[in-house]
Amino acid sequence: MAGRFIVIEGLEGAGKSTAAACVKKFIAAQNVELLHVREPGGTELGEALRDLVKRPDLDDAPAAMTELLLMYASRAQLVETKIKPALAAGTWVLGDRHDLSSQAYQGGGRQLDQQLLAQLRDMVLGAFRPDLTLYMDIDPVIGLERARGRGELDRIEQESIDFFHRTRARYQQLAQADDRIVTIDASQCIEQVQQDIERALQQAVQQWQ
Amino acid sequence: MAGRFIVIEGLEGAGKSTAAACVKKFIAAQNVELLHVREPGGTELGEALRDLVKRPDLDDAPAAMTELLLMYASRAQLVETKIKPALAAGTWVLGDRHDLSSQAYQGGGRQLDQQLLAQLRDMVLGAFRPDLTLYMDIDPVIGLERARGRGELDRIEQESIDFFHRTRARYQQLAQADDRIVTIDASQCIEQVQQDIERALQQAVQQWQ
Ligand SMILES: Nc1ncnc2c1ncn2[C@@H]1O[C@H](COP(=O)(O)OP(=O)(O)OP(=O)(O)O)[C@@H](O)[C@H]1O
Ligand SMILES: Nc1ncnc2c1ncn2[C@@H]1O[C@H](COP(=O)(O)OP(=O)(O)OP(=O)(O)O)[C@@H](O)[C@H]1O
Ligand SMILES: [Mg+2]
Ligand SMILES: [Mg+2]
Repeated sequence: MAGRFIVIEGLEGAGKSTAAACVKKFIAAQNVELLHVREPGGTELGEALRDLVKRPDLDDAPAAMTELLLMYASRAQLVETKIKPALAAGTWVLGDRHDLSSQAYQGGGRQLDQQLLAQLRDMVLGAFRPDLTLYMDIDPVIGLERARGRGELDRIEQESIDFFHRTRARYQQLAQADDRIVTIDASQCIEQVQQDIERALQQAVQQWQ
Repeated sequence: MAGRFIVIEGLEGAGKSTAAACVKKFIAAQNVELLHVREPGGTELGEALRDLVKRPDLDDAPAAMTELLLMYASRAQLVETKIKPALAAGTWVLGDRHDLSSQAYQGGGRQLDQQLLAQLRDMVLGAFRPDLTLYMDIDPVIGLERARGRGELDRIEQESIDFFHRTRARYQQLAQADDRIVTIDASQCIEQVQQDIERALQQAVQQWQ
């Protein structure tokens, strides 16, 4: 049987890595293999692109379109060389970010045209979509505060608070319109967040059986 | 007055760099500023992408779609941060490769869908096009022999001869269909090639006046 592709999404410091630990425990109990990947990155080429995209010290900061194309280059490589082969072999895949990040950050944050984004997505990914996306919804002020605990901010984390408010709004809008995206209130205490995640996973797994 | 964007295209070893010297001499005589750029590359970010795309030693060679997106990321950055500002300032721009390379290599060589390529081009570049393209037409057997004189072959130069025959066929087809592309017979001796280039430049400059 083909594996399932579960993605965790949300702003910086929303608690994606914390949620991933919870998802991994749940999947381990299902007795299936798991591949854990992140975007941008997840391949040798993709990790090099991740470094490039996050570097705050380039002479020429990437233009909005450049940034978008680099995200999709990293994603195309990851999907073709890792995610699809894993799913075909019955391995489940857990993604720390995926296409929804481009729709939210480049569409909401950078205000690129939403139709252009959908067109590029369809061009690169065809009909390939996650089976379940957990969207960790957080006020960017709280998220950035949590993230700041980790040290230096990269180029994207240095964006204005308005940028993140626009990104969150787009996340919320897209999550509401898609029944394979479950919104988790990430402002709650960790224990409550974990309960909500487990409930979403249980419901999804039931549907998949 | 806005500058003019002249591009030199063709297979490896066709004589693009040799032709560039000739174009530069011609442009110098027009008494205008010139910016000389290359693709992929031409910006700090783009040169890093060029290295990535040409590296023969990655664990994961770029998938065809990944390669295409990286070429466009480099191109988007170069056009937005260098070429358009230069042209707006009245500087002429000479490009060693531009969009036609993607149409020919990714479309002909890698056999990606031609409509998809045109869609991506329009998405990234809008209506932006070179004022004149000199397509240096050469049999790939001769071109690769010339290029091999320079040492180690990169990842793309290591492709099969069929790949380059398909790329050349697409170049020829696109050149024929577009009256802003002039085909130069690059199998001729250097003196004859240079004469043909000068003639093409003179005609173009007359039209532009
Ligand atoms: N529900 C929560 N309440 C309070 N703190 C939390 C909560 N979830 C996570 N944290 C803490 O916030 C910080 C950021 O969490 P985490 O690294 O999981 O976020 P992230 O979304 O993965 O961030 P990034 O986008 O930078 O990878 C960590 O120190 C984590 O312990
Ligand atoms: N018309 C010609 N006849 C014979 N040799 C030529 C001719 N044009 C160029 N050469 C030689 O062929 C080699 C490759 O030429 P050149 O570097 O100009 O090609 P190129 O198209 O720029 O290659 P690349 O795609 O690798 O940049 C050089 O040694 C050059 O001197
Ligand atoms: Mg994280
Ligand atoms: Mg050259």
